[in-house]
Amino acid sequence: MALIVQKYGGASLATPEKMLFVADRIIKEMKKGNRMVVVVSAPGDTTDNLIEFAEKLAKEPDARELDMLMSTGEQQSIALMSMALIAKGYKAKSFTGAQVGIVTDNKYTKARILDIKGASRIKEALKKGYICVVAGFQGITKGEDITTLGRGGSDLTAVALATALNADVCEFLKDVDGVFTANPEVVKDAKKIDYLSYDEMLELSSSGAQVLYNRCVEYAKNYGVVLHVRGTFSSKNGTIIKKEDVKMEKIVVSGITYNKKESKITIKGVPDRPGIAAFVFNKLAEGDVNVDMIIQNVSEKGATDISFTIFRKDSLKAVKVLDAIVKKVMAKGFFIDEAIGKVSVIGVGMRTHTGIASAMFKALADKKINIEMISTSEIKISVVVREDQVEDAVRVLHNAFKLGKKKPVVE
Amino acid sequence: MALIVQKYGGASLATPEKMLFVADRIIKEMKKGNRMVVVVSAPGDTTDNLIEFAEKLAKEPDARELDMLMSTGEQQSIALMSMALIAKGYKAKSFTGAQVGIVTDNKYTKARILDIKGASRIKEALKKGYICVVAGFQGITKGEDITTLGRGGSDLTAVALATALNADVCEFLKDVDGVFTANPEVVKDAKKIDYLSYDEMLELSSSGAQVLYNRCVEYAKNYGVVLHVRGTFSSKNGTIIKKEDVKMEKIVVSGITYNKKESKITIKGVPDRPGIAAFVFNKLAEGDVNVDMIIQNVSEKGATDISFTIFRKDSLKAVKVLDAIVKKVMAKGFFIDEAIGKVSVIGVGMRTHTGIASAMFKALADKKINIEMISTSEIKISVVVREDQVEDAVRVLHNAFKLGKKKPVVE
Repeated sequence: MALIVQKYGGASLATPEKMLFVADRIIKEMKKGNRMVVVVSAPGDTTDNLIEFAEKLAKEPDARELDMLMSTGEQQSIALMSMALIAKGYKAKSFTGAQVGIVTDNKYTKARILDIKGASRIKEALKKGYICVVAGFQGITKGEDITTLGRGGSDLTAVALATALNADVCEFLKDVDGVFTANPEVVKDAKKIDYLSYDEMLELSSSGAQVLYNRCVEYAKNYGVVLHVRGTFSSKNGTIIKKEDVKMEKIVVSGITYNKKESKITIKGVPDRPGIAAFVFNKLAEGDVNVDMIIQNVSEKGATDISFTIFRKDSLKAVKVLDAIVKKVMAKGFFIDEAIGKVSVIGVGMRTHTGIASAMFKALADKKINIEMISTSEIKISVVVREDQVEDAVRVLHNAFKLGKKKPVVE
Repeated sequence: MALIVQKYGGASLATPEKMLFVADRIIKEMKKGNRMVVVVSAPGDTTDNLIEFAEKLAKEPDARELDMLMSTGEQQSIALMSMALIAKGYKAKSFTGAQVGIVTDNKYTKARILDIKGASRIKEALKKGYICVVAGFQGITKGEDITTLGRGGSDLTAVALATALNADVCEFLKDVDGVFTANPEVVKDAKKIDYLSYDEMLELSSSGAQVLYNRCVEYAKNYGVVLHVRGTFSSKNGTIIKKEDVKMEKIVVSGITYNKKESKITIKGVPDRPGIAAFVFNKLAEGDVNVDMIIQNVSEKGATDISFTIFRKDSLKAVKVLDAIVKKVMAKGFFIDEAIGKVSVIGVGMRTHTGIASAMFKALADKKINIEMISTSEIKISVVVREDQVEDAVRVLHNAFKLGKKKPVVE
């Protein structure tokens, strides 16, 4: 008999029919003798609709009031889901973020969890045989104001509750059956990955796989919570994310990801003085521009080029800041290239396998795909290529590392 | 500088445009130097839509979960209204029922207020110059479960808060400008009433004027809260409801109301034994049938007829119970008459004016309107007439008691 925390996203709760389906999915686990805590997001477009209404009243709605407003979506979900479970003959009880004591700081719309005080209420209800349905995404300050946790907030609620309750596993029910070696829309024989380490999942997420939010994976890593990404419509196992073990380490490359949402910026002829890079990226941060990869070549004749990638949606903000930067540091100028894409190879095994980078570069070269930037971490190699070659690059690499139907590269 | 509690209903909050209008209405009072506490209902059809969704999941949704669900409507209103006020440059803060400490019993969907614990939070915010926007209709149990207060719950919240805060007045903003001597749709020269006693308002409400809920007026009467029913779209004074004073007592008749939502039931040939009436009305109550007027004539030959009126929507339920009742008490039978209407004359002054009843009956007789039942209270006389004569009766009486353009009957 396990204690399972399950999290369902808003798309699974958009209509009464979908809610009833999810209720049955939860009951299936109950019937196996498990104790269930269910974290739900707001149904369908509820949150978007509320924000739309708010923006008709105020250009920039007050953050405290926005949280008061948005938190109603999840509150509706927990009530509706509990009703559905009760109507099907099960004991169920809903809990708001406040009621389970998810205490946060008071950074409205992006609060951080400080503590979970009220898990005792859930423990008591579990003991009495209730399915506990908890509102994701929301918390409460010490002064009892309602907060929301920002992007990926419901995922975070699930992991934080799993930690507080010492749950056996925290499951994320998705419309896909798990994490794949590559986007199945791009690579036909992409394969579901059975196990991932937290670090691999983090690299996969930040380099393009939109499965879990990094905040949630980091929290799980810190507290050793076992995560399970699986399909709402399937009873098969999905992808389990946990502390890396011997078996995992043998797998050199776990997956290939890509991202076509970045732009490349190059500042030409930057004088090579200490502190210049710090100045540049500090100014960009002040201008609210998120920077991803950064490359600086060796300097020639006292000047260098600095290249970096940013989220494409920040391009306008970047241009505003860059004019001032170029002037200030007396660089020659800058240009933006929006037609790029990033392709990444990820795997804990590559840490000890120096051959991966060269195999990657060779596979791309053989296909005449030019590499414009390279960036590496312990378990990831990312390259920037032309945007229209991204899908090709993913397929080539997926094949080169034999991630498809055949077994992955194992030493 | 007064402390004003204002209550706005859902119809005034249905669209962003209406919300912005209400925000301006509130600000107008702020500009006069008043301190403002605003109680709001859920916007437009929100609550109905939520219940509709719930009923697709469960035939009889769990009451605790229904309250968890329904309370989100008011929470949306307070957030949206506060945003609108802040965007217009005013300090505003929203509060849920839980946050102002409206403690109730745990009779979900129709909870009763036990205490208001957290008014200190509002007092503090008022001191700092905030407009306090409070969710109507909702409370919290001692165990921190969310409850709702049932029909007229938001009105009750407003009066309870006005009591706890010792407010100068509790205003109800309506799409009508106050309480009228009769329904203006029926009586063209119906006049707004300036002052009413609590008892008059109670009689007016329960005999057909749908302005305030009795629960709210009773609460106000108990704690001496001055109520003011006024128009959202007007800055003129409406109707003030307060403890009766000398001036009021001079007004014999305040208004004429009517009600076409009742049916008349007569049980024929009921044996005249002690305890029979108690048995009959106890059975009806058990069958969830609300009884209004009751008439029992003197008996002849050991048997009598009992007549009473019920809400017409309860007719089916009544028939079910009556078959059993007739059998049990060995009555001759019963019949239902649905084509009736009730017309009432209300005024604190009639207490000391025995002539009112006869004036009323004469005015109706002159117009050949037959009276089928009569029921009186200290400050009200109600008669049952044919349904198609109700409007005529209202006009005749309004005229007889000179309630129109001319001054009311004063001694």
